[in-house]
Amino acid sequence: MGHFDQKLLPTAADVESAVARLKGVAVRTPLINAPVLDERLGARVFLKAEILQRTGSFKFRGAYNRISQIPADRRAAGVVAYSSGNHAQGVAAAAKLLGMPATIVMPDDAPKAKLARTRALGAEVVTYDRVGGADRAAIAEAIVKERGATLVPPYDDPMIIAGQGTIGVEIAEDLDKLGLKPDIVVVGASGGGLAAGVSLGIKSRAASARLFTAEPKDFDDTLRSFVRGERVANEKITGSICDALMSNTPGEWTFPINKELIGQGIAASDEEVGAAVRYAFNELKLVVEPGGAIGLASLLAGKLDGIVDIRGKTVVAILSGGNVDVEMYAKLIAG
Amino acid sequence: MGHFDQKLLPTAADVESAVARLKGVAVRTPLINAPVLDERLGARVFLKAEILQRTGSFKFRGAYNRISQIPADRRAAGVVAYSSGNHAQGVAAAAKLLGMPATIVMPDDAPKAKLARTRALGAEVVTYDRVGGADRAAIAEAIVKERGATLVPPYDDPMIIAGQGTIGVEIAEDLDKLGLKPDIVVVGASGGGLAAGVSLGIKSRAASARLFTAEPKDFDDTLRSFVRGERVANEKITGSICDALMSNTPGEWTFPINKELIGQGIAASDEEVGAAVRYAFNELKLVVEPGGAIGLASLLAGKLDGIVDIRGKTVVAILSGGNVDVEMYAKLIAG
Repeated sequence: MGHFDQKLLPTAADVESAVARLKGVAVRTPLINAPVLDERLGARVFLKAEILQRTGSFKFRGAYNRISQIPADRRAAGVVAYSSGNHAQGVAAAAKLLGMPATIVMPDDAPKAKLARTRALGAEVVTYDRVGGADRAAIAEAIVKERGATLVPPYDDPMIIAGQGTIGVEIAEDLDKLGLKPDIVVVGASGGGLAAGVSLGIKSRAASARLFTAEPKDFDDTLRSFVRGERVANEKITGSICDALMSNTPGEWTFPINKELIGQGIAASDEEVGAAVRYAFNELKLVVEPGGAIGLASLLAGKLDGIVDIRGKTVVAILSGGNVDVEMYAKLIAG
Repeated sequence: MGHFDQKLLPTAADVESAVARLKGVAVRTPLINAPVLDERLGARVFLKAEILQRTGSFKFRGAYNRISQIPADRRAAGVVAYSSGNHAQGVAAAAKLLGMPATIVMPDDAPKAKLARTRALGAEVVTYDRVGGADRAAIAEAIVKERGATLVPPYDDPMIIAGQGTIGVEIAEDLDKLGLKPDIVVVGASGGGLAAGVSLGIKSRAASARLFTAEPKDFDDTLRSFVRGERVANEKITGSICDALMSNTPGEWTFPINKELIGQGIAASDEEVGAAVRYAFNELKLVVEPGGAIGLASLLAGKLDGIVDIRGKTVVAILSGGNVDVEMYAKLIAG
């Protein structure tokens, strides 16, 4: 996608097109209800298990929706992406399914498992010095120019957003089968692609649903941008266990959607995220990476208290990813 | 239930009654398909995620089916059970839902998490010295007599078997929605209650399905009993990481069913089970305890090679439980 253009913002119709494109390709992940969590929160709680998606995170959806629309004459030149990890794997897997080469620009301090898995999916990995301030976008652009490849951005793209939106449609459909509507949906935000997509998907099916972004404390740029009414940046660029949620500002394409359809955010500390990862291990038997647990963490830590009464409501959180290093996971579940 | 009586063996009709009894009470657990596992095994593989059942294992189903049929005048005296862990939690949770007191006789070397969780479900826990050879059945019987309580055996009971059988019905129903029939089903066996129930449930819906029990190496009493045509015991009583699969012999009630409907078994080593637990962490993002991974372990280790060609087939394994101590889990996933 080129530069931001208000007129090209994705709509619910783009999400429906993505649903058709991903049918039989993406895993239709289960919407999990656990009685033990319902009891704890006093609500009917559903967890969209995107940890069970191809490559262990939701990122495959947007990547496949984007890459499958690359014209035939540009496919041989392949795709390029930059990512802290999950988008990398999503792009690599989608390109592989579509028979296209993929080059991924990744921070050299990304979790080892994410680097290894991206390579295992057949992608070429180019690392850069994130903390030192190297410009990953510039590195990716250079490769794009050199090879004539197509850049697949992590979130700031209408087709990426529409692909993530299929999650919202599936949530609404699965709840509908149970005779339910989502009252409250908590969705993690980094660049905001998941949040924008899910809000489009959910709102078109259940207009009364109230959505909230969830972010790591100190990396709550979306929350603060909602308050300010414009995009603001985080001061920190490192220092959260949520390695998947460290974008510096809300996206150009994602923020207008999230501002309109969500507009409110909550944030949780590393300790609260760790407690949620541990809770998912002990009580839910699900492996969730820190960034993927931000919504659950916010609910368990009562971050909606005083904002909205969730008791008796149908509440949804998205377990957005499960790619976590063994060492960090062992530490987190030990508490 | 009283002494064994061939005429009282549970049937597919008893499983159907259990389906009605458990509706809206047990979690209808998802049947998970992971493309990465399909590729690895060259088959269409489905995992019945009983790790997502109430209390983290399938045991709740049989326990609830049994306890909910206790006559009104005997409910106040409560229930008693003996168990290495998962049955304990299943009984405690079922009794709690039905408003009945529960006393559980557990080995003093059971995983700490299982002891703690059983108490957390409101049950009274009485421990015994398993390795020293204390007779847990006798201890439970003494409590039954003293209090007039009802004994809920772990597997050797028609209603327990019928309750576990609801898993088989759900597998067949969920595959049917996808236009599939189960070709091969691998089900873990200890006392054989899960295997007997699942075989009743599956065979009534998909008569051509071929079932196999899976057991830990050196604790493969069911496999050896199939070969001998009669119930034989294990020589060892300790020494497997599969703490949930250490019954000494096949059950009196379960074996006739398993002999007729299954008749073939496979076994996997502790190393192979550990590899499956690790695979489930890395690739499936599911927390599975060693005993709960025995079917997956057998498939990953190729234990069906030379017995049946699974390529292109619809293959089902049951992830029967996910209650594992943090320390053991951290060790297993580190490899």
